[in-house]
Amino acid sequence: MSVITENAGGRGGGLGDGSTVSRSVLVKPGMCGHNSLFVGNLGDWTWETVSELCDTNAFDATNADGSPTYLSFYYFHIRASPRMHVNGLTFGDRLEVGSRLFDFGSESILTLHEVRPEGARAGPIDPERFYRFADPDCIYVENYNRWITRSRPGSNEDLVKSSPVGFRHDHLPKLPDEYSPRRIYNHARNRLTFLDGLPGDRVPLAPRLTLDYPIEASRDLNGVGLLYFATYFSIIDWALLRLWRRLGRDTATFLDRVVLDHRLCYLGNADADSVLRISVEAWEKRGGAGDEIVNVVIRERDSGRTVAVSTLHVLSTGGAHDDA
Amino acid sequence: MSVITENAGGRGGGLGDGSTVSRSVLVKPGMCGHNSLFVGNLGDWTWETVSELCDTNAFDATNADGSPTYLSFYYFHIRASPRMHVNGLTFGDRLEVGSRLFDFGSESILTLHEVRPEGARAGPIDPERFYRFADPDCIYVENYNRWITRSRPGSNEDLVKSSPVGFRHDHLPKLPDEYSPRRIYNHARNRLTFLDGLPGDRVPLAPRLTLDYPIEASRDLNGVGLLYFATYFSIIDWALLRLWRRLGRDTATFLDRVVLDHRLCYLGNADADSVLRISVEAWEKRGGAGDEIVNVVIRERDSGRTVAVSTLHVLSTGGAHDDA
Repeated sequence: MSVITENAGGRGGGLGDGSTVSRSVLVKPGMCGHNSLFVGNLGDWTWETVSELCDTNAFDATNADGSPTYLSFYYFHIRASPRMHVNGLTFGDRLEVGSRLFDFGSESILTLHEVRPEGARAGPIDPERFYRFADPDCIYVENYNRWITRSRPGSNEDLVKSSPVGFRHDHLPKLPDEYSPRRIYNHARNRLTFLDGLPGDRVPLAPRLTLDYPIEASRDLNGVGLLYFATYFSIIDWALLRLWRRLGRDTATFLDRVVLDHRLCYLGNADADSVLRISVEAWEKRGGAGDEIVNVVIRERDSGRTVAVSTLHVLSTGGAHDDA
Repeated sequence: MSVITENAGGRGGGLGDGSTVSRSVLVKPGMCGHNSLFVGNLGDWTWETVSELCDTNAFDATNADGSPTYLSFYYFHIRASPRMHVNGLTFGDRLEVGSRLFDFGSESILTLHEVRPEGARAGPIDPERFYRFADPDCIYVENYNRWITRSRPGSNEDLVKSSPVGFRHDHLPKLPDEYSPRRIYNHARNRLTFLDGLPGDRVPLAPRLTLDYPIEASRDLNGVGLLYFATYFSIIDWALLRLWRRLGRDTATFLDRVVLDHRLCYLGNADADSVLRISVEAWEKRGGAGDEIVNVVIRERDSGRTVAVSTLHVLSTGGAHDDA
C-alpha cells in the first residue's frame, strides 16, 4: 500500500488548457491540526502549481539582477462549511485538490483551489461556479500572489515587486472582471476591513481588544528569514483565542469553532525583533448566538505601519452547527 | 517541469530486504525555516515508511477495540554538521532521504533516516555506519516510536500502549544491541538528561533558567487534539531563545546557530490548558567559545509530571564554524 498519493501529473482537470493541476492528498500530522499547517500546505500547492505550469521554479526563482524573488502572498481567502472546514481536517483524511491559475500579468498571479473529500463530485474549476461557494463538501481557496524581492539585504521591510526571468503566464485564462480580487484587497487596504459596513442585524460582541504580539524568532520565520505567510494565520488565531478568553469562553469551544470565511490581506512583512500591535473587533448576529464576524488589524507597533488586515466569519458554537 | 519529486517507490535502498524507502524531496516553505516544520516532515516520513512497509496505515490505525492508536514519538535524535543541519535548509533545496525500519516488537519501532543533498554519495543505511555519524553531508535522524491510545476520551494524560491490528514487523531487521535506543532513553528518563556526566572541559554558561510556557491552544495541538510532537521542538527553541536573551545575545546570532546534536525523550503529553515549567541548564567548552551543551527538562507545572527531556549540542557562533 502506498500512502503517498500526491500527484501533480493530472493537468487539465477537464479544461485541458494547461491551467489546472489535480492532486490526491493523504492528510498527515504535518498538514493539519489546531495550527496553521494546512494553510502552509495550501501555500505550497500554489507554488507547486505555478512551478508546474509557468516554466518557473517558484521555490528557487531569481530576477534579472540574479536576486532571489519570492511568490509572496498578498490576498488569501478561505471559504468553508460546517461539514468541510480547515480545523475539521485530521490525519488519515483523503482529499482531492484541484488548483487552477489565472493570468494577472508578469508581476502577480491568482490561484483557485478546490479541496474536497476523496470521492466527492468535482468538475473542472470554473470561476462562475467557484465564486458561488455553493458546495458544502468543498473548501474554496483563493490565493493572489505577487513576485517580490528584498530592497535591502537582511531587512524584511520595504519589499519591492520583482518578476523572475522566464515566468510564463500569457497562456493562462483571464478571470472575469467581476471576480477580480483587486477591488476586494484594495477595499481592505483602504478601509482596514473586508466588510462593506456591517449588516443591520449585527451587534458588537465585545469592546475592541488591543494586543501586543512580539514576533517569536524561534517559530515565526520561514527558510529565508521572512515572517512566514502561514504565521499570520497563527497570529490571528492567537488573537482570536484572547478574544475567546475575554468573553469567558473555554479552550474546548475554541478548538471546536468553525471558520466559515477567512480573508487576509498581507500589506507588509516585519523583522524578527518587531512587536506587532493587534486590534480585534467582533460582532454577533442579533439573536443568532454563535454566528460571529471578527475583524483583525495587525500593525508594526513602533512604526504604526499596517502589516495585515483580516476578516473572519466564525461559528463559535462549532459542533452544534454540524447539521447546518 | 515537475517539482513534486517525492517518491516512495524505491524500496530496498540497496539492501533489498523490504525495510527501506527512498525519497527525492524538494524543500518547500512548509517544510523548513526557523520553526519546527522540517522536524514535522521527518515525523511524517516515519509514519509514511511504516505505512509503506508494515501493512498498517499509520495515519488511520485502530487497535483491537476499534479505538484510534497513534505511532507516538518517544525518542527523537537528530545529528548534523555545520555543513548540513536543520536550520540551514531552505526552500528550493533538493534532498535525498533514505529511511529504514528496525523491528522492536509489536508495540514499538525504530526508524533511521539519512538526509543528504541531492547527488551526495549515499549507500544503503547500515547501523554500523549510521552510528558513526561520520558524513558531514548527512543529517542523521533516529525515531523510536510506540503505539499508544488515550485511556480517557478527551484527556491527553495517561496515554497507554496499544498496537494496531495487523501491524507487521517480523520481516524487519533487528538493530544490533549495542545501538539500542533503550539504554539511552532510559538514562534520560531516570537522570533527566542525556549526558553521562559533564566532560571535564565544560563550565557553566549561565545560572539555571526556569521558564513557564502556557500551552498555546491556537498553535500547539495536532489534528487529534494532542500536543503535536514537533511542538516540543518549538517549545525547546522558545526556551533556547530565552537563554540567548539572558546571555545578552541578539536575534541574528540565534537564527545563525548550528544544532549539531539534538536528543529528545517524550515522557508525556499535556492538555491544552496546561502550563509547562521548563528548566534550562547550559555549559560551554572552556576556552572554546560558542561550543555549548544545553539541557532542557519540561514538566507539567501543576502536577510536576515530567513531560520531556532534551539535550542539545549547539554552535552558538553559527556561520563562523562553516569551515569546521
